[in-house]
Amino acid sequence: MTTGEFAFLEWLRQRTPSTERVLLGPGDDTAILRWPRGPHCLVTTDMLLEGSCFRLAETHPGTRGAGTARQVGRKAMAVNLSDMAAMAGIPVAAVVSIGLPRKGGRALAEELYLGLRERADAFNTAIIGGDTNSWDGPLVINVALLGEATPRGAVRRKGARPGDRLFVTGPLGGSLLGKHFDFMPRVREALALHAAVDLHAMIDISDGLAADVAHLCAESGCGALLYADAIPIAEAAHAMADDRTPLEHALGDGEDFELVFAVAPAEAETLLRIPPIAGLTLIGECVAEAGLWLQENGRRRPLPPLGYVHTLE
Amino acid sequence: MTTGEFAFLEWLRQRTPSTERVLLGPGDDTAILRWPRGPHCLVTTDMLLEGSCFRLAETHPGTRGAGTARQVGRKAMAVNLSDMAAMAGIPVAAVVSIGLPRKGGRALAEELYLGLRERADAFNTAIIGGDTNSWDGPLVINVALLGEATPRGAVRRKGARPGDRLFVTGPLGGSLLGKHFDFMPRVREALALHAAVDLHAMIDISDGLAADVAHLCAESGCGALLYADAIPIAEAAHAMADDRTPLEHALGDGEDFELVFAVAPAEAETLLRIPPIAGLTLIGECVAEAGLWLQENGRRRPLPPLGYVHTLE
Repeated sequence: MTTGEFAFLEWLRQRTPSTERVLLGPGDDTAILRWPRGPHCLVTTDMLLEGSCFRLAETHPGTRGAGTARQVGRKAMAVNLSDMAAMAGIPVAAVVSIGLPRKGGRALAEELYLGLRERADAFNTAIIGGDTNSWDGPLVINVALLGEATPRGAVRRKGARPGDRLFVTGPLGGSLLGKHFDFMPRVREALALHAAVDLHAMIDISDGLAADVAHLCAESGCGALLYADAIPIAEAAHAMADDRTPLEHALGDGEDFELVFAVAPAEAETLLRIPPIAGLTLIGECVAEAGLWLQENGRRRPLPPLGYVHTLE
Repeated sequence: MTTGEFAFLEWLRQRTPSTERVLLGPGDDTAILRWPRGPHCLVTTDMLLEGSCFRLAETHPGTRGAGTARQVGRKAMAVNLSDMAAMAGIPVAAVVSIGLPRKGGRALAEELYLGLRERADAFNTAIIGGDTNSWDGPLVINVALLGEATPRGAVRRKGARPGDRLFVTGPLGGSLLGKHFDFMPRVREALALHAAVDLHAMIDISDGLAADVAHLCAESGCGALLYADAIPIAEAAHAMADDRTPLEHALGDGEDFELVFAVAPAEAETLLRIPPIAGLTLIGECVAEAGLWLQENGRRRPLPPLGYVHTLE
């Protein structure tokens, strides 16, 4: 997600004709396609560009936030699996395209592939095809992932209602210190939650908690109040040790790849009584008025969506 | 397709576990995935890299073989549709990822999208999602395309038998003079042929007639004899006017995006009697012995597969 992408997305959406096959086009975590007689097909794609989305430790040793080709492969698959999780979908198969620098390309390709496979194998997802090129540019890797909706259907960003409770699946912030490469996408957690309760709306945290809750709210036509004291803060958010507080990191860093979702109050009680997954935390509620608020020390203040904070420095 | 891709593909294939969902993994024009209760899902992907797969007329005005962003968009969608055609599949929906140069990226993105849509719309294919990034590198565009197998099943590269007749769907050579950007993928032709006769094996011509017939034969475990006099030569192959003959251009240029396929002799007679599509030409036959031969002036000589000839100069 880059600056300007939302404007282009709007341009795209206006020009995307609805067809009977397409249940959901651009703008959510995956698209939803009707498949004759079978379960709906969920599709997502993500491109990682060297120097913009990641730095390669092989060429930038010692750079904070740089990752090995193995880690880049892991991330390229995992960001797509995280999108699949955000729809409570079941990943099935992926295709992978790679643009390799001419020098050392074959070795990079093998490491990338081993990283891709680590995450794909963890979710029984086959790598069924691809396109491998070499060129004079930096490393580029694109994954497109197919999945199935469960019989309960896919969970969209749209569907949260005022009064709904907001939960997050794990601690947030400081992802740059390692988690942004090595996270485990919340595929299993999403399916367990989807089986346990009626999920009104869900999104994965890639742009940052505040920004992604804002996306969910914008699609749902509501606002949200987050409880500052309740937001789970990752140790890495403390370890960042810069001019931002750990809470600010948790709200704005992004690339946590945890899930945020909205459920009705009664379902929230069910989740709190016997949590179907570890790490589940109630962090806020949806409100009728559009916008984001933070409740801190008994006071409520507007929370800027903070926007996408790039993981490169 | 680049030098070394075949070796890497073999490495990949050896490491791709077969799962019950995957009917066909890497190595054909599309993968084939079982879909519960529904038709098989066909998946392909292709990445185009500026400076390697194409040159942009906007940044290289006057360069032979350079294309506008609109043409690059057309090609990015069409190469995937051509892969779908090679399986006699029905295209359904695509996702598109783009890496845009920071300067002028938005305008490029709009032109790319219009080009993508021209080809997608021609085959009732929806663009259902994507990923748009900007970076300091050149233009990168990746399309992943989903389709369905018809009730007759997908046609693979494997399946040709000695004695089978080889046909091509149109004239070949000189694609660099324009066709490599502006071709219409043979989706409808493939479906008409698939309905009319039993297609044993099929491939689209991206690497070049000789190289692609060699791929089809390698998968099928046979060889092929091509009739030099019968190979349809495009006007552009004559217009190339360099040190290679028009026949050499037809055999080796590649990026024609016509289809080559094998059928039993009786089916060949059916096709010749009442051709179900325009432009169909009988160009050779499959033989038991591995390898490629060219019959020219009553003599038979070994034909080197010529390999991939890059469209950039």
